[in-house]
Amino acid sequence: MNTAATMQNSPASTAARPIDFYFDFISPFGYFASLRIDALAAKYGYTVNWHSMLIGVSVVKVMGMKPLLEVPLKGPYIAHDARRYARRHGIALVRDPGAPPVDPRPAGRAFNWLLQHYPEAARPFAQHAFAAYWLQGRDISDPAVVAEIVGESGCAGAQIAQGIASEEAGRLLRSNVEASLARGVFGSPFFIVGDEPFFGAEKMELLEEWLASGGW
Amino acid sequence: MNTAATMQNSPASTAARPIDFYFDFISPFGYFASLRIDALAAKYGYTVNWHSMLIGVSVVKVMGMKPLLEVPLKGPYIAHDARRYARRHGIALVRDPGAPPVDPRPAGRAFNWLLQHYPEAARPFAQHAFAAYWLQGRDISDPAVVAEIVGESGCAGAQIAQGIASEEAGRLLRSNVEASLARGVFGSPFFIVGDEPFFGAEKMELLEEWLASGGW
Repeated sequence: MNTAATMQNSPASTAARPIDFYFDFISPFGYFASLRIDALAAKYGYTVNWHSMLIGVSVVKVMGMKPLLEVPLKGPYIAHDARRYARRHGIALVRDPGAPPVDPRPAGRAFNWLLQHYPEAARPFAQHAFAAYWLQGRDISDPAVVAEIVGESGCAGAQIAQGIASEEAGRLLRSNVEASLARGVFGSPFFIVGDEPFFGAEKMELLEEWLASGGW
Repeated sequence: MNTAATMQNSPASTAARPIDFYFDFISPFGYFASLRIDALAAKYGYTVNWHSMLIGVSVVKVMGMKPLLEVPLKGPYIAHDARRYARRHGIALVRDPGAPPVDPRPAGRAFNWLLQHYPEAARPFAQHAFAAYWLQGRDISDPAVVAEIVGESGCAGAQIAQGIASEEAGRLLRSNVEASLARGVFGSPFFIVGDEPFFGAEKMELLEEWLASGGW
């Protein structure tokens, strides 16, 4: 259980009914979900705890697959499906979902360090990092770019700049990725309500049915 | 293009607007989709061409993955998700979606032989085979059981019993699986409208939007 991150995610996360939302910055559907999940949760009186995960660990190391975009048949489909979603929802992607992803770990380290030390800053950073990557085409594998995005999302200061690139940040990312795997999280986006798992942006309608009905 | 099968699938398939529906008998979500796709298509003036495919070929041989239920994290999730769908829709599965699947090729051979020689009988057979496997727990890897199911779906005769187990039936299955791969089909259920692909039962709402709007 990702207890440490959950408890410190935001002041609102102390509410009785949290949804755990797992994402990878390089996942287009993780980005799409990030645009909707808070409003969906609020509609039913839930809060959302945001957690970064790494598809490169779950898919490649744990599940034994190739990187998703390199999987024959499935890779081209995923890219097509993401472009179709973006058109449908009027999201002006600058980065093509079929282009090779960058290394998401610098952004993941920053997110997890903020989650630990400035929990209220973690979600705004994630939102800015998603937009920087997908809407602005910026290279979030560059620690200098990540530091800029942290500043743009409202955090500033030498201590923060050092912290997000620290060994501690790497350790926090690794331990939270391990925690996500222990909860069964293998893709992005992934939602957990209580112990109930929902994988994929296309499961958000089912997630909504679950929230509305209390489950079945 | 799966032209031969498409043209002979049913008399209705000569209509201008077909949906190609691909399924594997051992896929629970293929079964769930089979219960809904004809009505969904008819609502928008489309017909449906049913095609069997083999996940064991697309996933294991082409995509290089383990059999889905054996993939860490994803396997248990898929089984859970299928049980949840069945509960939600009141489908009384006898076979557990988490149980090891049987060899679907005997049923696939029968389906493809019927598609070639008795095209109007192929879909009723597929519907009976799905029900036999998922609702009655019968072993559709047993050619004798498959022959029974062919009989129950309205076909009878020594010629048919020989045909569905013939070398020709195996050849038709292989060539139609090849054709499905050439169209990019990698999972079950899979839908193609024109050239537009939709993977997964959870994409049926998006498919409906596509049919209703004409696409985007």
